[in-house]
Amino acid sequence: MPVIPGPDDVLAAAERLAPHVVTTPLLESPLLDARVGGRLLLKAEMLQRTGAFKWRGAMNRLLQLSDDERRRGVVAFSSGNHGQAVAAAARRVGTSAVVVMPADAPRMKVDRTRAHGAEVVLYDRLRDDREAIGRRLAAERGLVLVPPYDDPMIAAGQGTLALEVARQASGLGARLDAFLVPCSGGGLAAGCALALERESPGTEVYTVEPAGFDDMARSLAEGRRVENRAGGRSICDALLAAAPGEMTFEVNRPRLAGGLVVSDEQVLDAMAAAFDALKVVVEPGGAVALAAALSGALDCRGKTVAVVLSGGNVDPETFARALSRSPA
Amino acid sequence: MPVIPGPDDVLAAAERLAPHVVTTPLLESPLLDARVGGRLLLKAEMLQRTGAFKWRGAMNRLLQLSDDERRRGVVAFSSGNHGQAVAAAARRVGTSAVVVMPADAPRMKVDRTRAHGAEVVLYDRLRDDREAIGRRLAAERGLVLVPPYDDPMIAAGQGTLALEVARQASGLGARLDAFLVPCSGGGLAAGCALALERESPGTEVYTVEPAGFDDMARSLAEGRRVENRAGGRSICDALLAAAPGEMTFEVNRPRLAGGLVVSDEQVLDAMAAAFDALKVVVEPGGAVALAAALSGALDCRGKTVAVVLSGGNVDPETFARALSRSPA
Repeated sequence: MPVIPGPDDVLAAAERLAPHVVTTPLLESPLLDARVGGRLLLKAEMLQRTGAFKWRGAMNRLLQLSDDERRRGVVAFSSGNHGQAVAAAARRVGTSAVVVMPADAPRMKVDRTRAHGAEVVLYDRLRDDREAIGRRLAAERGLVLVPPYDDPMIAAGQGTLALEVARQASGLGARLDAFLVPCSGGGLAAGCALALERESPGTEVYTVEPAGFDDMARSLAEGRRVENRAGGRSICDALLAAAPGEMTFEVNRPRLAGGLVVSDEQVLDAMAAAFDALKVVVEPGGAVALAAALSGALDCRGKTVAVVLSGGNVDPETFARALSRSPA
Repeated sequence: MPVIPGPDDVLAAAERLAPHVVTTPLLESPLLDARVGGRLLLKAEMLQRTGAFKWRGAMNRLLQLSDDERRRGVVAFSSGNHGQAVAAAARRVGTSAVVVMPADAPRMKVDRTRAHGAEVVLYDRLRDDREAIGRRLAAERGLVLVPPYDDPMIAAGQGTLALEVARQASGLGARLDAFLVPCSGGGLAAGCALALERESPGTEVYTVEPAGFDDMARSLAEGRRVENRAGGRSICDALLAAAPGEMTFEVNRPRLAGGLVVSDEQVLDAMAAAFDALKVVVEPGGAVALAAALSGALDCRGKTVAVVLSGGNVDPETFARALSRSPA
């Protein structure tokens, strides 16, 4: 059985992370509110260090390395944002990092990971097993493996995002009816569900995934972990995990209201809407929760809904593609 | 002689505006710091209501309308952001607005101004006198003229931006060596200079203008108000005022360290850098201060420099143009 974190672990992470994270703003837009017929509170996590929420979990893990572990260094496997975060966190705590990334990850994510001083090992996303590569490197070189989601310290760190949202919403006098969170392996969702269980117990938490990678939605519906069908494609490079994590699913299964699914077209529309109405840069995987609100995958009419914009690490070509669409 | 505002007017504006403005975040980027060899503190004012700092001045003016003035309504002339702000502020305080805008203003600025419920009157920027049109409408319809910069209440409202910056920087333990502010008619610069005179007296304030519209830089150098030469062109649609305001120049002349000038190419590069490193959307006129830092127009090496990103209201086509450039 995996170690399951609880709400107290998120509170402890928030205290540990306080000097290290940006308290990202909770944005509002009358234009978007009019479009959905409700009130959206949008967590601008692209303004976090390294441009995504992954910094929270990575720092929470690396701040808990022992002196011996810090001397040895860490290894992470990641589609990009976790790798960048681990690379930057490693530099900050004074250790070294190896990051295993897919060869087709966005160029900027690979470049940034290297710029933070990490050694990057590329693999073929369709043929190789990244976890096996990570485990082999950990064993061969004596490195500490920092998994992207299926780890209690990682999930607790990610959950600090929802703690902030709950407190910011409370400062606005708003009661959250629902909380929409992008989902790949489910670490962010798990951490947020734990935080909200404590801070905002009436709030319904929904994961959002891209079509073809709706493993969490189907797993929640079936009550057991199921994998994605092979051969799916999506522009949401950050959300391509094959199945929910074991630990994250244990946390999420009893706590989540359900899993929503959006198309790549709806994601591009959400990226354009964030540009237009919010003036922020959201990457495809970071825009799925907004896409769920704008497309009606969740009916927001008359509700107050927190929407996590989870990251902004997108190549200019992909962003320009979102902008070149005619407005919805 | 025009009425000249003082630092106390900025403090009073901050108190008046507190329930109405977003305290926009002060961003930092290790990537940009490495590029300039100093520390940049970037005021993300595209996250302000209506996407630009103009909301501050417009609200400060409209909150001081008498009951009679509020019944009559207001008229503003504007390249776009002031018009949007006056339109939205009018709706908020319960009055009506007419906005005089150039026919070649970005489509989104015209659309947004109308969406806020204002009547838009278009004029030809090269042939018509927008101030005369505004004055005529004010006289004919009994409207209150809300000028874009040459007004003590407007400038004091804009200055609240620098108050926030000074306090945010102080919270970071940072001492500001310089403050870079985009400049058209000089209202934002004047308000900021007044605020910093009180809150951060050692800070050198520089205006930044696009090449061909460097009236403030030349006016500061000559010690008297001079106009732009005719026929200039720039992508900075928000910064095309013909000459410094009379009041704003009185405030700025003794207080500013100088005026810097950047090219359109440097502006596009700064927009791309903000996308890449900060994950925010900056319009051309909002990016000139960042362009001054990144281009070396101000040598930032070893300095802590506040950079105002003053707005984010840019058409997708123009933004895509900035993104399509190869990185500097």
